Amino acid sequence: SLKRAVAEYLSQDLPNKLSPDDVYLTIGCTQAIEVILNVLARPNANILLPRPGFPYYEARAVFCNLEMRHFDLLPESEWEVDLNAVESLADENTVAIVIINPGNPCGNVYTYHHLKGVAEMARKLGILVIADEVYDHLTFGSKPFVPMGIFGSIAPVVTLGSISKRWIVPGWRLGWLVTNDPNGILKKHGVIDSITGFLNISSDPATFIQGAIPQIIQNTKDDFFSKIANMLRETADICYDRIKDIPCITCPSKPQGSMFVMVKLHLNLLADIEDDLDFCLKLAKEESLIILPGIAVGLKNWLRITFACEPSSLEDGLKRLNAFYQRHAKKQ
Amino acid sequence: SLKRAVAEYLSQDLPNKLSPDDVYLTIGCTQAIEVILNVLARPNANILLPRPGFPYYEARAVFCNLEMRHFDLLPESEWEVDLNAVESLADENTVAIVIINPGNPCGNVYTYHHLKGVAEMARKLGILVIADEVYDHLTFGSKPFVPMGIFGSIAPVVTLGSISKRWIVPGWRLGWLVTNDPNGILKKHGVIDSITGFLNISSDPATFIQGAIPQIIQNTKDDFFSKIANMLRETADICYDRIKDIPCITCPSKPQGSMFVMVKLHLNLLADIEDDLDFCLKLAKEESLIILPGIAVGLKNWLRITFACEPSSLEDGLKRLNAFYQRHAKKQ
Repeated sequence: SLKRAVAEYLSQDLPNKLSPDDVYLTIGCTQAIEVILNVLARPNANILLPRPGFPYYEARAVFCNLEMRHFDLLPESEWEVDLNAVESLADENTVAIVIINPGNPCGNVYTYHHLKGVAEMARKLGILVIADEVYDHLTFGSKPFVPMGIFGSIAPVVTLGSISKRWIVPGWRLGWLVTNDPNGILKKHGVIDSITGFLNISSDPATFIQGAIPQIIQNTKDDFFSKIANMLRETADICYDRIKDIPCITCPSKPQGSMFVMVKLHLNLLADIEDDLDFCLKLAKEESLIILPGIAVGLKNWLRITFACEPSSLEDGLKRLNAFYQRHAKKQ
Repeated sequence: SLKRAVAEYLSQDLPNKLSPDDVYLTIGCTQAIEVILNVLARPNANILLPRPGFPYYEARAVFCNLEMRHFDLLPESEWEVDLNAVESLADENTVAIVIINPGNPCGNVYTYHHLKGVAEMARKLGILVIADEVYDHLTFGSKPFVPMGIFGSIAPVVTLGSISKRWIVPGWRLGWLVTNDPNGILKKHGVIDSITGFLNISSDPATFIQGAIPQIIQNTKDDFFSKIANMLRETADICYDRIKDIPCITCPSKPQGSMFVMVKLHLNLLADIEDDLDFCLKLAKEESLIILPGIAVGLKNWLRITFACEPSSLEDGLKRLNAFYQRHAKKQ
């Protein structure tokens, strides 16, 4: 069955094997996020979200009246979670913490040790870990991808994923929500019933994508994945190197996963730029180059650069970025 | 463009031509219902729903805290809307009325005259008409399908549809929400902005289904549709005739559209059947025949019979239904 194929795929990296009953198919990871936030929403509940993060969480949390509290990811510590901040943000109404790994927008890949620390904090706080692993296995640095589900016996983990990124088919709209909960805590608290209930009144992924899932998951050659990892490694390297030549931005840590890197914008080196949004608007107008202002992902006066493109386009884009800087640099 | 293809397709039957901007693509008609109910939900608002109806409306209305008020469809008047009931149910917090035509579960096809009456009532009440036309053009009786959008200048009409039924591809998950509102009332009241906002945080239909839409809509031969209409006409006839031979059920009006017919269950002719649910459970157990109990669509002690199947299977099923009746008939 389809759910069995997903369960077997994810179980390859887990100590506790998943059963098909742990798997819920969704319309992309987007719907998986919608499901879990709606399931957790109740009056006064709050959820802990990373800053910077993926703004769809904020949109959905607002829509279902789930209070958001933001903890920082630490740029000087390879964007690790500020666990002290997490502890002080949480209270008896906190229901979950969201961890995006590999990271969007930071390109971070968390270590086994750090993820275990997150799980232990979740256990201490009595909350669920929502592990957004939509970029799972898209790593190309020294750190391997470690699935959060490994720590499901420390605290219940709901893993969100899809075929969108690893197979590069975002338009196919096929994702999953998977429960890693050997202690049965989610079932006991009615979370499983709520997930089922929510999906009962929601649309399913298109049938023929569903039908293709076992083939897609089981028969994709390693070659396909290593080619993508090699491409991303190359463009991440280009990106990281060229950024060093542009004085107005600095990159606190080299991306090791996903397709993005966050760079800090130094406004004091620029003559006529107000903030990150102003920077990006003028850049688009003058250089036809689109970069996401950090404010869109929760971090003002940073920029999110995507390196999932052809090396030559990336080189060209970063040249334009440098030309833009030169033109707007503050005269010393 | 895709929206243009849908706009042109629906405009064939309308006096005011639709523009692509009037069209919103959705993940089946299911998501179209989700969108419009969420958009209309606000504290104290209520919506008028048909009884019997399509229970997904009830599920979604409950989920978004939209109060439901049910008006009857009149079995002795070919399941027309009880407009007097509509008028007395509505108040200043009523936002919309849902009309399903061709009808699920009743198989009704409404006349131009009746639909105009609905539009005039909506105008009188100052409410929106939600026209669920997912079975559009699936008609096979004497009455032609009349789209509610014709009356968009009397009251604003939001038409919901999909390729699921007419093209018989429910699993492809491609539907639409279309506004027929030449007077711009929906835009003025912020409904259009809300629709756009809701879809902004929702998943889209799978891209390659979207890509296929113009071809599907423009290049399907009339032959394909007339074949389906002929099949449904044949099975509707079989269904209607055989039902006459089964004393415990009566059909108030012959279905002219969709794939369903509602029949009244006469419990006084049965020895050991408590109600419609009991009837259907025993029928499934004894005859391996599945019929939907009316209570599931809001009408206790009725049954919904589907005739979208092979004539021979249908004959067989109705024979089993008769055998079941004979076995449970009250001895005179």
